[in-house]
Amino acid sequence: MTEIHEAPPGEFNAAVLAASLAGKHAADTVEILNGLQPSDAADVVRLLPREAAIEILDKPELYFGAEIIAALPRHVAGALLAGMSADVAADIVQLLEEPAKTELLGELDGVSRGAIVDLLAYPENTAGAMMTTEFVSVPSTWTVEQTLQHVRSVERTRETVYAIYLLDPVNRRIVGAVSLRRLISGEPSAKISALALEPITTLPLTDREDVARLIAKYDLLAVPVIDKAGHLLGIVTVDDIIDAIIEESTEDVQKFGGMSATEEPYMQIGMMDMIRKRGGWLAVLFVSEMLTASVMQHFEGELEKALVLTLFIPLIMSSGGNSGSQATSLLIRSLALQDVKLDDWWRVMLRELPTGMILGGVLGVIGLVRVVLWQKLGIYDYGEHWILVGLTVASALIGVVAFGSVAGSMLPFALQRVGFDPASASAPFVATLVDVTGLMIYFSVALLILRGTLL
Amino acid sequence: MTEIHEAPPGEFNAAVLAASLAGKHAADTVEILNGLQPSDAADVVRLLPREAAIEILDKPELYFGAEIIAALPRHVAGALLAGMSADVAADIVQLLEEPAKTELLGELDGVSRGAIVDLLAYPENTAGAMMTTEFVSVPSTWTVEQTLQHVRSVERTRETVYAIYLLDPVNRRIVGAVSLRRLISGEPSAKISALALEPITTLPLTDREDVARLIAKYDLLAVPVIDKAGHLLGIVTVDDIIDAIIEESTEDVQKFGGMSATEEPYMQIGMMDMIRKRGGWLAVLFVSEMLTASVMQHFEGELEKALVLTLFIPLIMSSGGNSGSQATSLLIRSLALQDVKLDDWWRVMLRELPTGMILGGVLGVIGLVRVVLWQKLGIYDYGEHWILVGLTVASALIGVVAFGSVAGSMLPFALQRVGFDPASASAPFVATLVDVTGLMIYFSVALLILRGTLL
Repeated sequence: MTEIHEAPPGEFNAAVLAASLAGKHAADTVEILNGLQPSDAADVVRLLPREAAIEILDKPELYFGAEIIAALPRHVAGALLAGMSADVAADIVQLLEEPAKTELLGELDGVSRGAIVDLLAYPENTAGAMMTTEFVSVPSTWTVEQTLQHVRSVERTRETVYAIYLLDPVNRRIVGAVSLRRLISGEPSAKISALALEPITTLPLTDREDVARLIAKYDLLAVPVIDKAGHLLGIVTVDDIIDAIIEESTEDVQKFGGMSATEEPYMQIGMMDMIRKRGGWLAVLFVSEMLTASVMQHFEGELEKALVLTLFIPLIMSSGGNSGSQATSLLIRSLALQDVKLDDWWRVMLRELPTGMILGGVLGVIGLVRVVLWQKLGIYDYGEHWILVGLTVASALIGVVAFGSVAGSMLPFALQRVGFDPASASAPFVATLVDVTGLMIYFSVALLILRGTLL
Repeated sequence: MTEIHEAPPGEFNAAVLAASLAGKHAADTVEILNGLQPSDAADVVRLLPREAAIEILDKPELYFGAEIIAALPRHVAGALLAGMSADVAADIVQLLEEPAKTELLGELDGVSRGAIVDLLAYPENTAGAMMTTEFVSVPSTWTVEQTLQHVRSVERTRETVYAIYLLDPVNRRIVGAVSLRRLISGEPSAKISALALEPITTLPLTDREDVARLIAKYDLLAVPVIDKAGHLLGIVTVDDIIDAIIEESTEDVQKFGGMSATEEPYMQIGMMDMIRKRGGWLAVLFVSEMLTASVMQHFEGELEKALVLTLFIPLIMSSGGNSGSQATSLLIRSLALQDVKLDDWWRVMLRELPTGMILGGVLGVIGLVRVVLWQKLGIYDYGEHWILVGLTVASALIGVVAFGSVAGSMLPFALQRVGFDPASASAPFVATLVDVTGLMIYFSVALLILRGTLL
């Protein structure tokens, strides 16, 4: 397809790009816009038909929603915000700076503004902040036919119509939920309440991870969010929950890797921001790890007498850190999936202690074999007490790996116990914890086995 | 609620339990059954009404589906399997041992058996293995009214009816998709094809992570799986995808923690199985980490002359490992979310190198301050060349942290390049990689700075 008036390559032409987007799926358009500068993306959005622009801004995957809205003329931006899902619109408004924020809210009609302001009041990552207020509800006294007519008439303006909520006509509390599939199969003259099921609901301050668990467990397409009196405030839909699960998963891996979670894609994070997010934890870990230098200083006399011991320090420390990292990753997920409850900590410890000792024993045997082989093959001379050195290494490994397994598995419990996310436990943190203790275990074992010979 | 003929506490009574389950949500019943012995769970399932038993067995969350099916009389088990979703039934049949497997397939009618056998042929974790064959499709020549009638008549037997697929009446290839919400709002006499959209499809061998990406990107409730000719083979529904995303997330954290992914919940894994899953990687890492001992042996002369250098070995090594772990966790997720593509590796390296040097510089300053403080405050005497020792530590930190950041960020690219999952990169593996090189960097820097004084 060759166009005559095409823009020269490399030069950005909003009109050409906007025209080429006609008929594209909104999700694909979002990917293209994400590759542009925010101001260029705003130029393109301005040229799109209103419906298309709303559909694109409604995608939480769009990086620069707030920048685009801020760059558009206020009345255009207001019309777009009013057409969007209230939950995504609220997310965008939250990111706006003053005076744009107040000016834009002023452009909105009372209903749209009210919905957005209400949503802004809920803390991030809660059901309240995620919910949309565009749901379908009908009085519980209606018939199937009435309900179906209503669904048809509001279909275009609702985020989902696959679940219909029944409200008590007097106190307007939620009394039931009907799926669209049950509705269309119902007898038109039947009472809608005859098809209803007890709704599975959540409260606005529930954490998004718990909402995700509810949706996953009951295979729901949406969860109604209610206040304590039972009034329906909004619904959280399955597509928002998928985005949330993916985001949580990214955060969990990053936290486990030992850094603060990032919100933007890798290439979008400024270098200084990146250094802050990584440097903070790195410095904390570094200062804690300084204890290893103190431990080594404390055992300086022993090190001088038996320099051969230093050769195995990295090996023993890292084995403790590795077994701790394994145990932590196991328990973080078990607690997140609720396979294991907080009260199970002692049951876990009773498993981890023997598991760690056996794993340490296996490594100990490998370590001992190495010392014997190197000695016998003449690769390295560990001195006249080489067999005792080998036994020291093997015994220390049992202790260090067992300690690593127990400490690594208990850390997520401890974090959850004091009200933190168990997923805040990171592999580097566990390694630091185990390094310091591991060194002490190693030197103590050495003193026990080598006293009278090397020490 | 006191019953007179209650079973004595502690004694299991299948009939009492089965009766108490009436009216409970299937997902809650599954949780209760998961707490029982498999044989007890089978006794309970046998006593449930057929519909309820099918609904429970249909939940992928049920731990002992295969054990329950195997424990039931073959004709009962066959009737339950035939009533279940083909995808879950196939998962259960896959786990059965012979002769139960063949005997049970013999109990099934031809259609159910065919569907299950077809699904068994697809490799695990692909769209083909996850898909269900209970979807709704109609000829593209039908009207809205005809289609709606058809949906009503098959509603009870389909996993989802929220997407209806249009097939060419001649060659039976998929030509469009209509959502139920569009369908109910359509003019009854209109052609169904007028409401149809181009379907977003996938192939049966597509990895479940890619299917999840598709569903998340386009906010779909189901993705049709087609063969190369365009024939509809089945659909993957959003609830199965949520389960898959959660499972992948668990696997990713466990692999990043340095162990083989587990499939059962923590408490269900046998001790020997656990030791195998952890011991394998632990031993591989241990043997690789033995290189640190070799490096130390190589620099033994230097260590003897300057024992003070050993004090900082754990500190420097762990800082390299920590920065590597951060970089790896960042890039694993960036590659998984496709924020970063394989070709971007050099762009990432150009960011990681200066980032790592700055981070190393920050730690270096902290390390230098420690040496100066301890020396000046008289806490520890690092010898007459203490300032050079401090500079050695600081310079080594810049090199080691920069190397850790670059190596940690490149590892996921390298794995993806050779066809592995980037998420196979683990924190312990990165730490091991960085430990060996880190030691070499440290000793080389020491030789450079301390030659002529300490060395």
